[in-house]
Amino acid sequence: MALKSFIEVHPDCHFPIQNLPFGVFRPEQGSAPRPGVAIGDYVLDLSEIASAGLFDGPILNNSDCFSEPNLNKFLALGRPAWKEARATLQRLLSSTEPALRDNGALRKKSFLPMDKAEMLLPVAVGDYTDFFSSMHHAKNCGTIFRGPQNPIPPNWFHIPIAYHGRASSIVISGTDIIRPRGQGQPTGNSPPYFGPSLKLDFELEMAAFVGPGNELGKPVDVNEAADHIFGLVLMNDWSARDIQAWEYVPLGPFLGKSFGTTISPWIVTLDALEPFSCDAPKQDPPPLPYLAEKISKNYDIALEVQIKPAGHKDSCVVTRSNFNNLYWTLTQQLAHHTVNGCNLRPGDLLGTGTISGPEPESLGCLLELTWNGQKPLSLNGINRKFLEDGDEVTFSGFCKGNGYTVGFGTCRGKIVPSSS
Amino acid sequence: MALKSFIEVHPDCHFPIQNLPFGVFRPEQGSAPRPGVAIGDYVLDLSEIASAGLFDGPILNNSDCFSEPNLNKFLALGRPAWKEARATLQRLLSSTEPALRDNGALRKKSFLPMDKAEMLLPVAVGDYTDFFSSMHHAKNCGTIFRGPQNPIPPNWFHIPIAYHGRASSIVISGTDIIRPRGQGQPTGNSPPYFGPSLKLDFELEMAAFVGPGNELGKPVDVNEAADHIFGLVLMNDWSARDIQAWEYVPLGPFLGKSFGTTISPWIVTLDALEPFSCDAPKQDPPPLPYLAEKISKNYDIALEVQIKPAGHKDSCVVTRSNFNNLYWTLTQQLAHHTVNGCNLRPGDLLGTGTISGPEPESLGCLLELTWNGQKPLSLNGINRKFLEDGDEVTFSGFCKGNGYTVGFGTCRGKIVPSSS
Repeated sequence: MALKSFIEVHPDCHFPIQNLPFGVFRPEQGSAPRPGVAIGDYVLDLSEIASAGLFDGPILNNSDCFSEPNLNKFLALGRPAWKEARATLQRLLSSTEPALRDNGALRKKSFLPMDKAEMLLPVAVGDYTDFFSSMHHAKNCGTIFRGPQNPIPPNWFHIPIAYHGRASSIVISGTDIIRPRGQGQPTGNSPPYFGPSLKLDFELEMAAFVGPGNELGKPVDVNEAADHIFGLVLMNDWSARDIQAWEYVPLGPFLGKSFGTTISPWIVTLDALEPFSCDAPKQDPPPLPYLAEKISKNYDIALEVQIKPAGHKDSCVVTRSNFNNLYWTLTQQLAHHTVNGCNLRPGDLLGTGTISGPEPESLGCLLELTWNGQKPLSLNGINRKFLEDGDEVTFSGFCKGNGYTVGFGTCRGKIVPSSS
Repeated sequence: MALKSFIEVHPDCHFPIQNLPFGVFRPEQGSAPRPGVAIGDYVLDLSEIASAGLFDGPILNNSDCFSEPNLNKFLALGRPAWKEARATLQRLLSSTEPALRDNGALRKKSFLPMDKAEMLLPVAVGDYTDFFSSMHHAKNCGTIFRGPQNPIPPNWFHIPIAYHGRASSIVISGTDIIRPRGQGQPTGNSPPYFGPSLKLDFELEMAAFVGPGNELGKPVDVNEAADHIFGLVLMNDWSARDIQAWEYVPLGPFLGKSFGTTISPWIVTLDALEPFSCDAPKQDPPPLPYLAEKISKNYDIALEVQIKPAGHKDSCVVTRSNFNNLYWTLTQQLAHHTVNGCNLRPGDLLGTGTISGPEPESLGCLLELTWNGQKPLSLNGINRKFLEDGDEVTFSGFCKGNGYTVGFGTCRGKIVPSSS
């Protein structure tokens, strides 16, 4: 029989006892940030559970990681601590366990209705790296930016290509995104365009939080890389295509990306995702030995993007994709990242890159969906080439279990006009 | 008459009372890191000066910024606090002021011979950005990587081009650099090369530490950008040219750079550099209005690179350049970085990019000096195309005043073999 919590959870709710994603929240304005897990429509305050002495396993009973304002310390502890926390919480929340269920005083101070919680960035991100791991996305972008001859650069099938992103402008779901200003390609002999971006886009991504890091100079073996990954969030790597197209040669994207990157608040652990793992695609040519893994795993996570234009009541689905469209796995990304000796630190964020599928309805950004603005989308009758001020973009993602859902909630942001 | 300290300082010493660069050190193994300034052959412990109540100005008398293990809090206070600290220290150290000079007990605990101090990273770096602001370097790299037709991409004269670098692998001068392993370009139909980099290089750069940051969405005006810059260090942005050449299309340098970036320990403030400011080069085409500054400043800082091969007693000078070879100014870099709304935070690091001059003896990296290995350098009779294991690379930089020197000390690193 499936595990059940004493908190009622609808089969379509993203946060059953099988999930238990970690986040950081404030119960009320001005109060201190603290770790929590999502259960049904509630947030369970882990600082209260820890204070009550209920984390009684051998690793966590002496740790103050749940009194911290972020999850970095918990992430640094590694998989044994994560498994212990998950087991303790599944036991405490199960319908058959009285310790928390029948303790009215503790229940009162440790559960908060989710709609009352202010969600914060769960982790202090040291470095943020963004990969480029969907072949369909790489092919489409290459065709649009560089033409249909050899759209995928020859290195792509050998290297999980990536670039360093900007950590400071990572924001939590719900934060408004201010339309960036910048330079766009000049036409003829005139100076470059300068002003609010004319080609503002979303990018449907997911991102992994790094747990224990590695020392500078000590690469992580690809077959041990999973132990360095805590879990996943949804991520919108907002992109200004006109700024990006003009600036990116030869050093890569910079201001076209660094004005904002939105993540969903709940980190779903790899342990919770394990039942939804599936085979990664066969790689041809075969990867070099340092990237050849014994078990090559993807996850079956359904992803969806909706846009709601300003003044409209209804959102419109613009794409449906799946995490399993990725060519390079999370573990290959992490092993590649460290093969030169680069050190990862707990709380580093590794984005997957835009997750486009093969079908026209599964493309992960407007650049691809509208073919750089040439084929506008219709949102319930309104045309869209790129994002307009007031557009609200919402990502969601989930795995469907037998009678339950393991979900990521949503990753949301609204475009507001440039400030000057 | 020139200001003089009660500590004897040789006219060629980099650290007279006119300089007073800030760093972080440990007086002995295992002791707590603390801020200090360099004066002659000594480090002055600012935590002791603060404890003694000698920072008596209106901003610093109530601050605990010098009890911190890094300078981030001091940097966040901004120029008025920096000027107050400088004025207080110049007064306390001057030969005519008895407060510190005649207090034997305080002198004993607050001065440490520099060769006894363990220097640490002075700042916790949030994000590290590397620009590409020497035209000579851009032209040479473009010619080597992409051929002599239009070696400088058309955006270069409009945009201070930059990429996000890796913050985690920034290390302090003196740290060994482990030769990175990685992929290099395949030849013919064989798989890519994999192994220790065959083209390991230094890059002669300087880097600015950001003081007060800006809010996400609020760009910094180019004419106010100097107030956001605390000071400068020397920086060696070690580069594996074979890894870089194979990976950098289309998203820019990644593992070719992220295995280590060395900075010098002493941050020389813009206030100390002010007497050495000079006109920046005239920019043609004129920059867009957001980059057009009322006063466009460079600094006359002489730079030198020496290499000492393993087992050799003598170093060999391989290049002499100058900070004033930069086309884009520090303030233009900072204004450009924020024009899209990107937020900078206190302690962010902005590298200038390799500082090459126009002459063959003033090129800032081996890629240029040996023309990608085609014209080996002679180091006292030994040939060098790229760096070999055991090579020690030392940068130095200074400004020559009237009877004194304002210098940066050195930025040093030795190449050690790949670990496996």
